[in-house]
Amino acid sequence: MGGPEIEALISMFAKVPGLGARSARRAVLRLLQNPETRMLPLARALTEAARAVKPCTLCGNLDSRSPCSICTDPSRDNAVICVVETVGDLWALERARVHHGLYHVLGGTLSALGGTGPDDLNLPPLLMRIAEGEALEVILALSATVDGAATAHFLMDRLAPTGVRVTRVAQGVPIGGALDVLDDGTLATALRARG
Amino acid sequence: MGGPEIEALISMFAKVPGLGARSARRAVLRLLQNPETRMLPLARALTEAARAVKPCTLCGNLDSRSPCSICTDPSRDNAVICVVETVGDLWALERARVHHGLYHVLGGTLSALGGTGPDDLNLPPLLMRIAEGEALEVILALSATVDGAATAHFLMDRLAPTGVRVTRVAQGVPIGGALDVLDDGTLATALRARG
Repeated sequence: MGGPEIEALISMFAKVPGLGARSARRAVLRLLQNPETRMLPLARALTEAARAVKPCTLCGNLDSRSPCSICTDPSRDNAVICVVETVGDLWALERARVHHGLYHVLGGTLSALGGTGPDDLNLPPLLMRIAEGEALEVILALSATVDGAATAHFLMDRLAPTGVRVTRVAQGVPIGGALDVLDDGTLATALRARG
Repeated sequence: MGGPEIEALISMFAKVPGLGARSARRAVLRLLQNPETRMLPLARALTEAARAVKPCTLCGNLDSRSPCSICTDPSRDNAVICVVETVGDLWALERARVHHGLYHVLGGTLSALGGTGPDDLNLPPLLMRIAEGEALEVILALSATVDGAATAHFLMDRLAPTGVRVTRVAQGVPIGGALDVLDDGTLATALRARG
């Protein structure tokens, strides 16, 4: 259509989550119409981020420095560590500004079907950090799925000997959620955990 | 959240048409998790395309060479030139494989409200190409809008002295379209142009 460069770019954009073939073409076209102001700056930002960003050795967060800006932030409460599955979950909690302690990114959950065992989780740095003794509470903020629940139980077992308090985020009716569109599992949980 | 590099990248992705803030974060996260296999190749493809791709001096298409690969394709019928508003329209016609002649990208339509006059259209190369005498027919494939219609009439006036045959794409009920969801204008046009 317009040479191999354009085709290559469209097929790469089509693989970006959230973009299909159609929106990839639209995106590439818009970028091509603004090579200096849009396209090259985007290319530079990608190169720069690929070079700079790496996982934090302490918590698994992605940041341009390691230990990351959360782990090294003196204003954060290092007595509370919130365990999440992915960096996306960490970002979601940070956007909500609801957790003022530290994080630990597991990198997934245990999954019998997916073949993910305890050794595949980013667990050693968390155990090390707890052993250092500053953590008083570990909050498990894992998915409300079978795998998430299995992982939570596994973590509670593993953390029991450390003496640290282990809590889990509550499950129930989401705020703004209408009861009649919720699945039976959520309704049952919400009713059981009433208070 | 993860340093200025990540923030900059997310805000640039959020400006890509088709991506909002939420999908931009998701896209950036996926790329960050695959810096070598996804992120750097995308950066390189962007740089390469920004360097290579430019508008064709003959027809206004975007291509890594000028004259573009359509203008220089000996298998295309240079007796028929299809006039479109944007490169996106050209891509759509090429995907449908319905036009085997050449194209001409106007770069927009006349627009009283938008302040676009005849001098803002990419018209001179089209007139030059017609003056060279190989074109027998010019197909106007412009939007079925007020501005598209005004532009079509303007072009018919301008092309009349050249003696070239000027046609317009048909307007009517889109294939697969149910009558009862169509607007009145389309219905009226379809009925008037019945045959």
